[in-house]
Amino acid sequence: MKKNILVIPGDGIGPEVTTWGKAVLEQIAKGFGHDFSYDEALMGHAAIEATGNPLPDETLEKAKKSDAILFGAVGHAKYDNDPSLKVRPEQGLLKIRKELGLYANLRPILLFDELLNASSIKPAILKGTDILFFRELTGDVYFGEKTRSEDKNTASDLMIYHRYEVERIARKAFEAAMQRRKRLCSVDKANVLESSRLWRETVQQVAKEYPEVQTDHMFIDNAAMQLIKDPKQFDVVLTANLFGDILTDEASQIAGSMGMLASASVGESTGFFEPIHGSAHDITGKNLANPLASILSVSLMLEIGFGLKDEAKIIIDAVDQVLKEGFRTNDIADDTTNPYKVLGTKEMGQLVLK
Amino acid sequence: MKKNILVIPGDGIGPEVTTWGKAVLEQIAKGFGHDFSYDEALMGHAAIEATGNPLPDETLEKAKKSDAILFGAVGHAKYDNDPSLKVRPEQGLLKIRKELGLYANLRPILLFDELLNASSIKPAILKGTDILFFRELTGDVYFGEKTRSEDKNTASDLMIYHRYEVERIARKAFEAAMQRRKRLCSVDKANVLESSRLWRETVQQVAKEYPEVQTDHMFIDNAAMQLIKDPKQFDVVLTANLFGDILTDEASQIAGSMGMLASASVGESTGFFEPIHGSAHDITGKNLANPLASILSVSLMLEIGFGLKDEAKIIIDAVDQVLKEGFRTNDIADDTTNPYKVLGTKEMGQLVLK
Ligand SMILES: CC(C)[C@H](C(=O)O)[C@@H](O)C(=O)O
Ligand SMILES: CC(C)[C@H](C(=O)O)[C@@H](O)C(=O)O
Repeated sequence: MKKNILVIPGDGIGPEVTTWGKAVLEQIAKGFGHDFSYDEALMGHAAIEATGNPLPDETLEKAKKSDAILFGAVGHAKYDNDPSLKVRPEQGLLKIRKELGLYANLRPILLFDELLNASSIKPAILKGTDILFFRELTGDVYFGEKTRSEDKNTASDLMIYHRYEVERIARKAFEAAMQRRKRLCSVDKANVLESSRLWRETVQQVAKEYPEVQTDHMFIDNAAMQLIKDPKQFDVVLTANLFGDILTDEASQIAGSMGMLASASVGESTGFFEPIHGSAHDITGKNLANPLASILSVSLMLEIGFGLKDEAKIIIDAVDQVLKEGFRTNDIADDTTNPYKVLGTKEMGQLVLK
Repeated sequence: MKKNILVIPGDGIGPEVTTWGKAVLEQIAKGFGHDFSYDEALMGHAAIEATGNPLPDETLEKAKKSDAILFGAVGHAKYDNDPSLKVRPEQGLLKIRKELGLYANLRPILLFDELLNASSIKPAILKGTDILFFRELTGDVYFGEKTRSEDKNTASDLMIYHRYEVERIARKAFEAAMQRRKRLCSVDKANVLESSRLWRETVQQVAKEYPEVQTDHMFIDNAAMQLIKDPKQFDVVLTANLFGDILTDEASQIAGSMGMLASASVGESTGFFEPIHGSAHDITGKNLANPLASILSVSLMLEIGFGLKDEAKIIIDAVDQVLKEGFRTNDIADDTTNPYKVLGTKEMGQLVLK
C-alpha cells in the first residue's frame, strides 16, 4: 500500500514520543512491504517561534495532501501563565481540526490487563472495561464566537451546535455501536443548556434508525461520576466537544495513564492521529515521557485510516508483550514494578520496535 | 438563637431526605434551646404541577424573608425524555440561585474513614483527602443568553463572565484557603476559552492579595483526571459554574457516594443548603435514598449559615458514630457490610436522630 504520511511533532514531549510512533510505522512498512513516505511540518509554539503563526499555510497545505497525519502535542507554559497573549499554540490544533473537517474524534479506552494495578481505581471495578468515546471535534464552545468587552471586564464564548453537526457524528457513533456491544450513551446537559437539548433531540432522532442499539442519555455531571463508579456500564459514549475533552481525560485513569491513550480524528478527508496527552512541559526532554500513546496512535492510523487490521494488531500485541514482560515507563509503574524495569522514552520505544 | 427556616422539599427523593434533615434541625433546636421556626414551599416539578411555575412568587417571597433554606432536589424524568418542553423543573433552582444572589456554592468533600472502602477508588489514594470546592453559581453558560433558530436547527448558550463575578468568589475561596492548608487550585480552560482567560487573569490578580496562599491553575480536562489520580493534592478548588458542576459530582466518588455530600450556597443574603445529589426518580418512594446528605446540609446550615459550630459538629459526630457502628444505606454499603445493617432512609434517619 502506498501512503503519504505527514508527521507534526509539535511542542513539549511531542517530538520525543512521535519519533517512536514514526519508527514503528517504518518498521511496519518494511515488514509488510508497504510504501509509506513521510514529510514533516510545524505546529503550535514551535510554529509560532519559527513563523509567528501556530498553523503556517505550508503545514495546512501539506496536511491536505497527506493520507494521514501523525501528531504529537501542542502547548507551552508561557501562554498558560499569560492569558493575555493573543497568538497561542492551541489555535494551531483547533484550526487544523476545523480546516480538515475532522469532526469525529474517536478515543478508545484500551485496558491492558497488565496495567490493572497502575490505576487509582480498584482493579475489580476496571476489569473488563471497554469504552469507545466519540467526541465531536469541530463545533461547540470551542469554535463559537469569542468576545472581550472594550474595558476587558467581560468575556464570552458561544456554545453552539447545528443539527447536521450532531447528526453526522451520531451516525458514526451508532455505526460503531452496531459493530460492538450495541449500547450507546449520549452525554449532555439538557436540563440546563439549549444546545444540549438540540443535541438530545437529534440523537433521539438518529437512534430511531438503529433500533437494535440500546440508547441512553446521561447528564455530564452524572457521567463524570458514573465513569469512575462503574466504567463497565459503558460501550460507546457519544458527546460534545467540551464534555468529551473532560470525560476522556478523566477516562485515561481507567487505562492507568494518559500516556497509554491514543485518538483518531476523522471526518471529511484525511485522518489525524494523536496521543490524548498534552505537551507536558514539566517532563519535556527528560526521557521520561511514555511513547506508547504515540505508538498506539499509529495502530489507529493503520486500522482506521488505512484499513490495515493485521498491521494494527501487531502493534497492540507488541505493546502487550512488553508490558507482560514487566517493562514500564514512569507513569505506569506501580509499587509492584521491578525497579530495573522502569524505562525511559527511548528504551521503551526500542523495546516495542523489537 | 431565633431563626426562620424555609424548607423546600422539591421533587423525587427530595421530600424523603429533607424530612430527616428537618427532624435533625428540630432535635438540635430542642437540645440547645434555639427557637427555630419552619415554613414550607414548592419548587420544581412539584411546583409546576401545582401552579404551572417552577418557582412560584410565593416561594421566592418566603425565601427572601427566611434566614436559611433547606432544599431537597428538583427534576423529573418526563422533562429529561422530552427536551422540547419549555417549562422545566430546573428553572426553579436556577432562578432562586440568581434571585437570592447565591453566587458561591461551597462543596466540602468530607471523607468518613468508615467509608474508605465504599469508593471505587483505592483507599490508599483516598485516605487523607480533604477538599473544599468553591463553585461559582450565578454566572457562566447557565445564565448566558440561550437561542434556538426559527427552523429549530441551531441552538446556543452564551458562556459569559464579568470580572466582578470572578473577583467576589475568588476572594471567598482565598479567605477559606487562609483558614485551611493555604493552597488554592483554580480550574479553567484558558487554552481555549476567552471567558476562562478572564477567569484566570482575575484569579491571578486576587491571588496577589493572598501571598501566603500557594495558587495553581489547572485546565478542566487535566483536573478531571488529577482528581481521581491523586485527590490529596487539592485543598481549595475554585471553579466556574459548569466546571464545578462536573468536578463536584465526580468528586462525590471520593466520599463513597453522592448520598454523602452536602453543599452550601451563599452570597448576598440568606443561605441555601442542599444535598449535591439530584431527584433520583429511579429510587423515589422506595425508602432507599440516603438521608445523610440532607442531614449534613443541616450541619452546614448551622455552621456556615448561623455560626453554630458546636451544633454542626454534633451532627457530623452522630453520622460518624452511626457509620462506625456499621450501619449503611444501600449506596454506601460494600462487600464487607453486614447485610443486617443495611438500612432504609427512615431507619438511617432515626438512628442519626438518636
Ligand atoms: C490542547 C487542547 C486545545 C485540546 C482540546 O481541548 O481539545 C486537548 O486538550 C485535547 O483534548 O486534544
Ligand atoms: C439540577 C441542575 C440544574 C443542577 C446544576 O447543574 O447546577 C445540579 O446538577 C447541581 O449541581 O446542583
